[in-house]
Amino acid sequence: MNIAFQGEKGAYSELAAKHFFNSRGNYLPLSRFSDVFRSVQNRECAYGIIPIENSLTGSIHENYDLLMETDTFISGEVFLSVSHYLIANKGVSRRSIKTVYSHPQAIKQCRRYLEAHSNLNVEAVFDTAGAVKMIKENNIRDAAAIASFQAAIDYDMKVLKKHMEDNHRNQTRFLILRPEENKKRENSSEYKTSIVFETKNIPGALFKALSVFALRDIDLFKIESRPVRETNFKYMFYLDFQGHYKDTVQEKALEHLDELTVYSKVLGSYKRGENITPEFTEKG
Amino acid sequence: MNIAFQGEKGAYSELAAKHFFNSRGNYLPLSRFSDVFRSVQNRECAYGIIPIENSLTGSIHENYDLLMETDTFISGEVFLSVSHYLIANKGVSRRSIKTVYSHPQAIKQCRRYLEAHSNLNVEAVFDTAGAVKMIKENNIRDAAAIASFQAAIDYDMKVLKKHMEDNHRNQTRFLILRPEENKKRENSSEYKTSIVFETKNIPGALFKALSVFALRDIDLFKIESRPVRETNFKYMFYLDFQGHYKDTVQEKALEHLDELTVYSKVLGSYKRGENITPEFTEKG
Repeated sequence: MNIAFQGEKGAYSELAAKHFFNSRGNYLPLSRFSDVFRSVQNRECAYGIIPIENSLTGSIHENYDLLMETDTFISGEVFLSVSHYLIANKGVSRRSIKTVYSHPQAIKQCRRYLEAHSNLNVEAVFDTAGAVKMIKENNIRDAAAIASFQAAIDYDMKVLKKHMEDNHRNQTRFLILRPEENKKRENSSEYKTSIVFETKNIPGALFKALSVFALRDIDLFKIESRPVRETNFKYMFYLDFQGHYKDTVQEKALEHLDELTVYSKVLGSYKRGENITPEFTEKG
Repeated sequence: MNIAFQGEKGAYSELAAKHFFNSRGNYLPLSRFSDVFRSVQNRECAYGIIPIENSLTGSIHENYDLLMETDTFISGEVFLSVSHYLIANKGVSRRSIKTVYSHPQAIKQCRRYLEAHSNLNVEAVFDTAGAVKMIKENNIRDAAAIASFQAAIDYDMKVLKKHMEDNHRNQTRFLILRPEENKKRENSSEYKTSIVFETKNIPGALFKALSVFALRDIDLFKIESRPVRETNFKYMFYLDFQGHYKDTVQEKALEHLDELTVYSKVLGSYKRGENITPEFTEKG
């Protein structure tokens, strides 16, 4: 069973997938999100995993676009509380570090630590796990990377500092992709459904669209508007609601929604995800 | 009149501010978003500018948090269609370029060009305009930067390639900050108001909150939910609606909203922004 993810070995996506699948399967690193979608659609991979939103940096519209454009379905979700680690070669001490490599997003999330250690040069790279790999392969003794603990394990490196992030509420939501939709289960109370839609250009369009769910007592978990045209007044909406889209009431709600929208697509119905805070036994 | 922005001279924020203010004022580059907010709150700067959302990469929650935490008010907005340029030292030809420097976000947005020129090494840096500055100051002859056209003008450099981005719908929305709120004008039909709120934990809370506006025929321009707790069922909402918050009907709507929320804050009422597509006469 192949599971596609974007990034290098040890990336946060791989970490989330390993938790979701209990480490079963082969994890296939690919360079772009679109490669992950393509490999699932072509059935080269049984599953894929993609990040869809982060509690600090928001929704990843690129992946919403790919969900709309491809024949793939959401079949699960996982919330990963992201924690950053300072990682170096074995035998290297914190005092010998002169340069820190990481992705700008991770650097930004560790600003307080880096400001308190302003003697460190900070260098931007494309991939947190890639930075660990580069330091390892070139046996660099005066540099460290900021990356996941998994990256330290994968490349057999030393952790110099744990939980470097300023804000410990840094959480990323990942979606599991499949080439087919999940079958409806008997008990779908633990399910949620993700849809996208574009409303007709009518007064109070969004309010009417939401009434479709509210009047049927269907809870909403997420709503987000996104402008379609630069001009204005045309919006796409992302909506997550309670239940499977083939549940009787939910099916009626979606029929009703069709009367109010010019476009809509069910992205998948899947079991609501759990929050994972990776706990490791460190080695090295 | 000082106008604070985050980044180096030539950053997209400065470009947007110059359009908004017709190039009047002194543009003050600061290193962090929080510095921009602080300089406005302390009245060291009459205005500040911050990006708040991008059509490809979503809302910038860090800046929403700073709007909630500081005593600053939104006093205007501008939509900037972002276009990326390949910029090098004068006398350098495209064929002599071996390395391209830019921010990972910009690199990602120019993926098709870079894939078609796969002989180019791509290096991540923290700032698009900073990359131009670095190439200029070190007189590097075999490298180019991806940045705004303004950066090419500011550092008196050569443009090797225009409009490198894959998706020409790449638009960023910027907000203008002031230490005081805008006074209500007679004609507020061109105004919009931005608020944040957290609903009470009651059934259909969001639907009821939106009914406050829908039942009064107040149009919505943006809505976005954001989880407050990792656990679940607690959300903040960002909402932009039509009119000034001191308009009679809008004032009633906000009073009504108070009955349904545990927290709400008006971030500002301001004239709705225009879309700007920078057009330049190139030199060099």
